[in-house]
Order: sequence, then C-alpha cells, then structure tokens
Amino acid sequence: MNNIQIKDLIKHQKINHSLDRPFYVNDKIFDLDIKNIFSKQWVFVGHTSRIPNIGDYFLFDIGNESMIIIRDKENIIHAHYNVCRHRGSHICLETEGNKKLLLCPYHAWSFNLDGTIKSARLMEEDFNKDEWSLHKCNLKVFEGLIFINLSENPCDFEEFIEPTRKYIEFHELGKAKIAFRKIYPTDGNWKLALDNFHECYHCQPSHPEYCSVHDPEYILSYGAGSGTGPASEKFNKILNEWNEKVKKLGHLTGEYAEKEFNKYSRSAERTPLKKGKFTETKKGKPIAKLMGKFKEYDRGYTSVGTSPFNSLLMCNDFATLFTFIPKSTLQTDVELIWLVHKDAKEGKDYDLSEMIWMWDETTKADKRIIEDNQKGVLSSKYMPGPLSQMEKGLEKFKSWYLKHLELALD
Amino acid sequence: MNNIQIKDLIKHQKINHSLDRPFYVNDKIFDLDIKNIFSKQWVFVGHTSRIPNIGDYFLFDIGNESMIIIRDKENIIHAHYNVCRHRGSHICLETEGNKKLLLCPYHAWSFNLDGTIKSARLMEEDFNKDEWSLHKCNLKVFEGLIFINLSENPCDFEEFIEPTRKYIEFHELGKAKIAFRKIYPTDGNWKLALDNFHECYHCQPSHPEYCSVHDPEYILSYGAGSGTGPASEKFNKILNEWNEKVKKLGHLTGEYAEKEFNKYSRSAERTPLKKGKFTETKKGKPIAKLMGKFKEYDRGYTSVGTSPFNSLLMCNDFATLFTFIPKSTLQTDVELIWLVHKDAKEGKDYDLSEMIWMWDETTKADKRIIEDNQKGVLSSKYMPGPLSQMEKGLEKFKSWYLKHLELALD
Amino acid sequence: MNNIQIKDLIKHQKINHSLDRPFYVNDKIFDLDIKNIFSKQWVFVGHTSRIPNIGDYFLFDIGNESMIIIRDKENIIHAHYNVCRHRGSHICLETEGNKKLLLCPYHAWSFNLDGTIKSARLMEEDFNKDEWSLHKCNLKVFEGLIFINLSENPCDFEEFIEPTRKYIEFHELGKAKIAFRKIYPTDGNWKLALDNFHECYHCQPSHPEYCSVHDPEYILSYGAGSGTGPASEKFNKILNEWNEKVKKLGHLTGEYAEKEFNKYSRSAERTPLKKGKFTETKKGKPIAKLMGKFKEYDRGYTSVGTSPFNSLLMCNDFATLFTFIPKSTLQTDVELIWLVHKDAKEGKDYDLSEMIWMWDETTKADKRIIEDNQKGVLSSKYMPGPLSQMEKGLEKFKSWYLKHLELALD
Repeated sequence: MNNIQIKDLIKHQKINHSLDRPFYVNDKIFDLDIKNIFSKQWVFVGHTSRIPNIGDYFLFDIGNESMIIIRDKENIIHAHYNVCRHRGSHICLETEGNKKLLLCPYHAWSFNLDGTIKSARLMEEDFNKDEWSLHKCNLKVFEGLIFINLSENPCDFEEFIEPTRKYIEFHELGKAKIAFRKIYPTDGNWKLALDNFHECYHCQPSHPEYCSVHDPEYILSYGAGSGTGPASEKFNKILNEWNEKVKKLGHLTGEYAEKEFNKYSRSAERTPLKKGKFTETKKGKPIAKLMGKFKEYDRGYTSVGTSPFNSLLMCNDFATLFTFIPKSTLQTDVELIWLVHKDAKEGKDYDLSEMIWMWDETTKADKRIIEDNQKGVLSSKYMPGPLSQMEKGLEKFKSWYLKHLELALD
Repeated sequence: MNNIQIKDLIKHQKINHSLDRPFYVNDKIFDLDIKNIFSKQWVFVGHTSRIPNIGDYFLFDIGNESMIIIRDKENIIHAHYNVCRHRGSHICLETEGNKKLLLCPYHAWSFNLDGTIKSARLMEEDFNKDEWSLHKCNLKVFEGLIFINLSENPCDFEEFIEPTRKYIEFHELGKAKIAFRKIYPTDGNWKLALDNFHECYHCQPSHPEYCSVHDPEYILSYGAGSGTGPASEKFNKILNEWNEKVKKLGHLTGEYAEKEFNKYSRSAERTPLKKGKFTETKKGKPIAKLMGKFKEYDRGYTSVGTSPFNSLLMCNDFATLFTFIPKSTLQTDVELIWLVHKDAKEGKDYDLSEMIWMWDETTKADKRIIEDNQKGVLSSKYMPGPLSQMEKGLEKFKSWYLKHLELALD
Repeated sequence: MNNIQIKDLIKHQKINHSLDRPFYVNDKIFDLDIKNIFSKQWVFVGHTSRIPNIGDYFLFDIGNESMIIIRDKENIIHAHYNVCRHRGSHICLETEGNKKLLLCPYHAWSFNLDGTIKSARLMEEDFNKDEWSLHKCNLKVFEGLIFINLSENPCDFEEFIEPTRKYIEFHELGKAKIAFRKIYPTDGNWKLALDNFHECYHCQPSHPEYCSVHDPEYILSYGAGSGTGPASEKFNKILNEWNEKVKKLGHLTGEYAEKEFNKYSRSAERTPLKKGKFTETKKGKPIAKLMGKFKEYDRGYTSVGTSPFNSLLMCNDFATLFTFIPKSTLQTDVELIWLVHKDAKEGKDYDLSEMIWMWDETTKADKRIIEDNQKGVLSSKYMPGPLSQMEKGLEKFKSWYLKHLELALD
C-alpha cells in the first residue's frame, strides 16, 4: 500500500463507523502512525519519584528505540538515547538502576549523566569530544510528570500544557510518589486499545468493578469524558448540584475540550463519583492521604487527557495514570502508575490492593477485550460497523487521527 | 513473484516430477491457493454428532478466519463468521460449547442462533437491525457430514456429491457418532501433506502398521486409490473374487474416478482388506457394531475422496475421516475423526485405542515425514525429482492443482 | 533497497568509522553477503577427528541449507547436500552419527556414502540412476581441517592455503583430535560478530580472562593481529628477543598479511604469551601433550586467519578454532573447537575445564556484547562512530568487505 492508496482509504472512511481493517493491521500504516502521530506528541513516560536520587534512571523502550531517563548531578532529568556514540552498543542494560557515570560496557567510552562525553581511550588526534555527546530526546517535567517528545521540532510545551495545567496542578502531582506500576502487554493495534479507552459503551457489559464505583447516568453520558455519550438530564442535575457545593469549598470545577481541530487532543473535567463514594475503590471510603489543594473530600473525579496516549484519572486521595505505548502493528503496552501523596505510607496510610483494584481489574478485562477484537478485525469479513450513541469519543479520536495522518501524507 | 511469473512457472512444471520449490514455500502462491483452490471446494469440517443439541457449537479456524458452526432452534446448522458486526470482536471465545444466544462479550450486541441480530443498545435512529446479521458461510449437511464452502458463488452441492453419494450412504454416516477426534499440526506446506497422502510408495518403508493391515499387492496397485500404482494381476484377481462374493450379499461394489478435468477431484472405491482382516486394526477382528447397510462383515474397505482436502476411509464397523487444513505457507493441520455406530458404547462395543491405532500411528509418522520433506525442499539444491510407478496419484493431484491455479490466473 | 541504492550506500561509508545501519540489519544485504562473501570463501566446518570411522558423519547447517559431511568407504570425506534427489526429503535427521548407507527415510531411495545412487524402487523405464547422485559441495581436507566452498566455481585451494600453510603445518593439526566443541548462538549480524573479533579495544574493559594471559603491550598492539593497534616499542622489543630464542630452537617465527586487496583475507603470526605463561590458561602452566613440531615449550602463540569466517589460535599444547556461521540477518552461530594431540588423554594428559576456560568465558562475554551492540544499532539514532587507534583490524575487515560487495554488484 503506497501513500496515495492510504490517502484514498482515508477519504473512504465512513462517519460514525469504526475504521477499515488496514488501519488496524497494516505495517506501513503502523510506521506512519509512529512517525507522524506518536512521535509528534508530548507523552509522559513516568514520574520523577521513580528516580529521586542523582544518577537514578529507568529505560523507556518503544519499538527499536531505548531511552535512558536519568537524573543528573544538577538534579536535571534527561532523556538520552541508549546508544553509544562509538559503535552503537546499548549503554544501560538493566530496566532501572543508579549510575555514577554512563559507562558503555563494550569499549568503556564514558558519558556524564548529562550526556556529554567524559572519556574515550586511544582516539585519533582529530577526535573532538564535543561532537560525540549522547543523542538527546526532548524532555520536560511538569508537576512530577516526565514528558518526552521524539520530534526534531517539538511543539511548544507551555502551549501544549496550558488548558490542562490547572487540573493537574490542583492535584499537586509534583508532591506525589509512585505507589504501584504495572504494564499490561496487549496483543492488539494501538488504535484498538484507544478505541476501547474512548468509549464506555462496553463498561456495563464488561466492567462490573467500574460500574460499582460510577453512577449509571455518568457512565451513559460522561463515561469516556464529557460529550462522549447522550446527554443525561439526571446527571446534569447531579453535576450542577455538586459544582455548587465544590465551589463553596474553593475547589476546582469545570471542563475543557478542544474547540476545533488542532495538533493536540486534550480534555479535562471534574465530575462527582457515584453517590456515597469518596474515592474509586470497592468500598468507596477515603483510603489515603488527601492530595493537592483539597481541604476535604469533595467526592470528585478529575479526568485529564493530555494526548490520546496519556490519561490521568484522579480522586482526592490517589491518581491513576495511563500511558499507551505502541510496540508493533499488533502489540501495545498499556502502562498504569498509581500515585499517592509523597508522605503516605503503604499499610498505614493506604491499602495498596484496595487502591489498585478497580483499574487493575478493568485493564485486565480491557486487555482481553482488545485482543478478541483484534482477532476478529483480522478476518476478511470484518467491516466497519455503526457506532452507538455512547461511542462519540471514539468517533472524535478517529477523526482526529485521520486528519493528522492525511496532513502528514500531503 | 507476480501472476505472470507464476503462470510462466506453471508452464515449466515437468510431467511425472514433483513441483518446483516456490509452490511449496512461496507466500504469494499460498494466498492464491487459499483463494482459488481451498475456498472453492466443499470441505467437510465436522460431524453433526459433535453438536447434537440446540445451541451446541464448535469453531472452525483457517488462517485469520474463525467460523461458528452452530445448531439453531429449528435444528438447522449454520456457519457464522465469528466477527461481531459492530466493532468486529470475536463472539465465541471457546473452541466449543453451548450458547442460548450469540452474545458479543465486548458491547453485548446479541445475535440469534440463526445469525440474525437480536439486540443492540443505544443505536442511532437510522440503525436498521436487518442489515447487521452475522456474515454467513455456505453450509450443507450430508449424512451427518458438515460441509462448508467459502466461495461467494459456491458450486452446486448436489452435483458435487453425486458420484460419491452411494458410497457414503451405504455406510450411513448420518447414523454415526464421533468416537475420537485429533489434530496433527504439521510444519509443512499443504501440498507436501497432500503429495504424501496421494501416494503409497512410502508405505512400505514408513508405515509398518498400515502394511500389517493391507495386502502388499493392494498397496502396490491401489494404495493411494485405484490407478495410483502399477496394475497388479494378483490383486485384480483378489478383487474380482471379492466383488462376486460381496454382490451376492447385496453390498455395494465398484469404483469412481473423474473421467476428465473438472472443478472437482473426487474418487471412490470398494476393495478387500488383507486376507484374514475384517477391519483396520492390529488383530483385524471385528471391533465395533456393524455400521450402515452391512448385513454382515464383508472384509471390505471403502475409500472416498470428496476433494483433495477430505478423505473417508471406511471399514464395516468404523470410519476414519481426514480434513487437511492449510494454516500458513509452511503449516498444515491434519484433523482425523473416527466415527462409529451411534449406538456403540466405548469399552463395551469397541476398544478406542485398538480402533485408532493404525491411522494414529500412520499420521504421526506422516507428520514427521512431511516436516523432513519440507526442510529439504527449502534448500537451494532441491529440484523436482522423477516420480515412481507408485506415485501416479500424486501426479494426478499435481496436474489438477496446476490447471486450477492456471485458470484462476487467467 | 535495490542494488543501485546499495552501491550508493557503499560509496558513502566513512573511513575509520563503523558501517551504516543497513549493513547490520537489512535482509537484502544479508542475502547478498551469503551469496557473494560467505559462499565464495573456503570455510572450515570441522575436524576429521569428529568422523574417524567409515560412515561417520555430521551435519553442517547454514540458513536453509543442510550438508552431510561424511567419510566414505575409501576414507574420502564428502559434503553432500542433505536433500534426497527424489522428492527432496532430508536424508540424515540426527546432527551426527554413523551410516552404512544414506537411506532416505521417506521412500527408501538409497545412496552410497560417496553420494552415488544405489537403489530406487519401481522407477519408470527411462530412469537413469547416474543422473540422480546427491548434490555435492566442494570439500578439501588440509591438516585434519575440513574446508567447504559453496561456490559453483571455487577459487583454487592450494593458492588459498599457501600463505598460512607453514603455520598450520607446524602445529600438525592432522595429528590432533577434538577435545571439546561448543556453539554460541548470538543474536547479532555476522559483521557485528566479526567487528568484535577484529579489534581488541574492548579486551581491557570486557575480558579480564584474556587480559590475564596476554601482555598489555601485546593487547594494545597485536590484540587482534599484527598492525591492528598502535605500534608498541616495548612489545617489539619483547617480540624480537623472543624471536631470537625461538629461532635457535628451530621453531617457526614470523608473520603474514595480505599486501594488497584480493579475494582472500588471510593472516598469520607467531608471538610470545605474557611473561611466565606457557599456554593460554589461568595458571599458564603447560597443560597437555606438546603438539606438532615443537621440541619444547617456546611460550609462543600462533594466530592464523584463513578467512574472516575462521581463525586458529594455537598454543604449544592445544589449539582453539573459530567458525563464524551467519544464520540470518540478526543471528550468527560462533562455533569453537578445542584440539589436542591425538594421543592426549583427558584427565591424565589435560584438564578440559582449565583448557577451555579462557576462550569459553571470553566468547560468552562477546556473545552478550554483540547482542547489546545489535540492539543499539537497530535504533534510528545509531550512526557510525569514529574508530580508535586499536580498531585498525576492524577498518581493514570493513574495507575488504565493502570492496567485495561492490565488485559483486557490478
């Protein structure tokens, strides 16, 4: 399939239907996706609390790329490509650890934590150390979230973060720490994983845990974000009443959505949990230290999407962060990080299993669902079906994706 | 390799030699095979006794296709593509089972057992249920055998079954039941598996079990069917004498072969087992209830081929059915089903291990043989070798195959 | 990538830098390498002591090719392609063994040990046995080393072996036997494995075992052969003194290197081990029977390269032989054979674990190093880095390789 054929295919996608098979199974389109969609977004890949000390690092791998996310001696965090500038060996071989120096295990070229070269033995006279620093990847830290951008000309970070800034700042994630981290390797195309994440039509049949925590009218109307399902007068009433109360507390309310097509796909909103629930657990009782600027429990739920590849779903006392990492045409890693207040102590201030229960069960179910979806989409008989009233979020994601891909092919 | 190159290659195949390497290793040719050969044949994929009750189903998988073979409320058997019409998820996840309703596990769209849609929640107003039944595959049941045909314009089933009808009917397979079923996954191209099945030149060196049950002169002359080896006066004499006796019993005799090239590749014949053998077991003694219209044991063996992908090898008291399922260029599943009289009881009326012994041992040996053949055919030094007098069946299959492929490329 | 693009890429390779990524990862280039580089060299694949008796054989596999290296009734060693001339089955299924006859397990065609056909049952009248001998591969035995050449027009063996002849003969490998054999499957392109073998810049950081046996000045200057590192006056002095002594003993001294580009890439030299070491073991004490024409221990080390794919590293009392076998673009087998005097007895005359220690540990480390190198080279950020003064051997190998490939593309 060449670019002209792909552009033609884009034109033939039907409104309010899922995508045609090639978008979910074709290797050429996958490569275009990585180059034109994933690599142009600011994607968060971790939290600063994972590398609290000088020299702490972890690797972030995508496809054939490996990046060393490391804290240098000035407490600045860098993303270096894990590729020695001499003959190309990986430098860090363990997934995470601490390094005083980035020493290549092959020929012992050494690099400082900031990526500049420290020493290379026995080089020729014309060797200029300054030219052989490690390749760098754009990196920004915002409220403890480590964002990278693989583009040569990344879009402006401040512009990018502006609309979601106050939602994230209210939760003070920069004063949080990782309580748990888990990767769910999923045998499905990244767009099937995101289709799944952008609609809550499947929540009622597939996610009893999710449905036990959230109000049915919320799920119907807001399950995958504001405007992703049919309007619900009942829920609007609940929301309005809750907004009044929360404003009085001086807490944040409101929502954000992109008004017109642009290079970003951001969203944010604050909504109440199901009646009687204070947080997103089985019992719904407060389970950890209050985070951020909350003075007391307001029963609210803050949902933020910074790009299709990241979501932050935040209660008053803990936050669940999602990163979707396309691995290959038919493989996607879904990484979840649970954050709590930096001073909270496991066992004393929070019960880990209770805290991760809902999203762990839900993400395991989604892994299975996406894999069964992929199997069917591989069939010659698969054809895009009509979307329900509860899949408007998927349609929105799909149209954003198609426009991006089309522009990239021009 | 493009179609012109393939047509050219077809023209250069030598009479009485095996095929050139690309036919056994090339992915493009494999895809053409599936599309033009396998998908245009009526292939049996199971027996009705596997799904005796309303709602019983099993899956038949080939390549990326999965089909639900299911018995509906009117006792009609259907083959539905296992692909939800909404977003494409597999509907049935287990290999076999019983369903009251075909409920998609993703978003709970539900389908009746006949494939029509039952319910879909929250669809838009213009949604027309009638347009979204499950995709159907052609299916016919004949004497308990479930045949499917993946073509959009399948050839006429009655015309297809006519010449082998009386042979199958005499054994009354519709009154039989599955005693055992086993799949032999084989790492070789489907044509290497069928080359193996179409000649008995390898029987003497490779299949002591087979040779203990069948007469050496039969193996020489009829091992892979009438006319697949050199004529044997000795066996003709044995056959004539046996025919006389059997006619007197009122049992069926005779044989069928295609007279000229056509879209089918069918064969049938009745021959006697080795002297002293009543059935195809180690001891050769009757081991199960007489099947079909047999009044008494006639020591006969009924061999039927309905297409290259299916064979029925039937004794008086049990039948062994073969299905060859191309999985990928270098992988083929060989599925064997042993049928007995529906009223026969294991342990009382028949001993299972004795019954399956010969074809189980022989098929395990063939799996190994085909895999070693494939390894050699991958070598750059492989070239088609001359066929012996006992490989006329292979030559016949090969020429049928080449003509079909050539016509498809026109 | 087509041939013109590859030729263009060859032109753009920078002197004194490693190769561009495609040379290490591209399937098309790998196929060209096998066809034009590996298949045109005389490569040794074993030692006659592995098959001492008539009918003894072992298989040598490369890619989809399998070769039977077998000793016939006249004590002549042959390399037959392991492909039956009838329908192509592999004939020998075990890695090694003894055969009275090469009997195909499929249809029992039989071949004599010299590859001529012995019998084929029931062939047509026009069948001419003489036309269906096994396909042969060029094979030469020199001093017990079994060399094969996959070319249709192999270069002259005598011309090829001439410059290294006296070095190999002095060790009388024809009077040796295999003490141990081990394969190190390595997930890296064959050129990354050979880059590693052609420089000793990595020895100091990565190979403590190697460095304990060899003099630091030798490693610096001669680690990957004469002229592969910067000149060392210290080592030249050591070498000159040692040469004087050794000449008096009547032992061999000197070195050989290709003077100008040609189809071969051969080298040879004799150098002293580290002071106090008699042989290449942890303790450095003599550990086995003296081999070859040595009258007494001369503390020497004979390094011979017959092609990039083979090296012989020989002490006075044992020899370590290397064969690099490209398996696929990203896979290489490194096979090591340790030879001792044919009359030496394990446990009595030599301690096996002591003898293999250095090269076993070193090759396990190199396997890991090469694999980590390959991972980094797959990154989009890999680019050829500058070579050090100790990587002149790599540069030489690289330029020989590029010229060969360029000539093949003309």
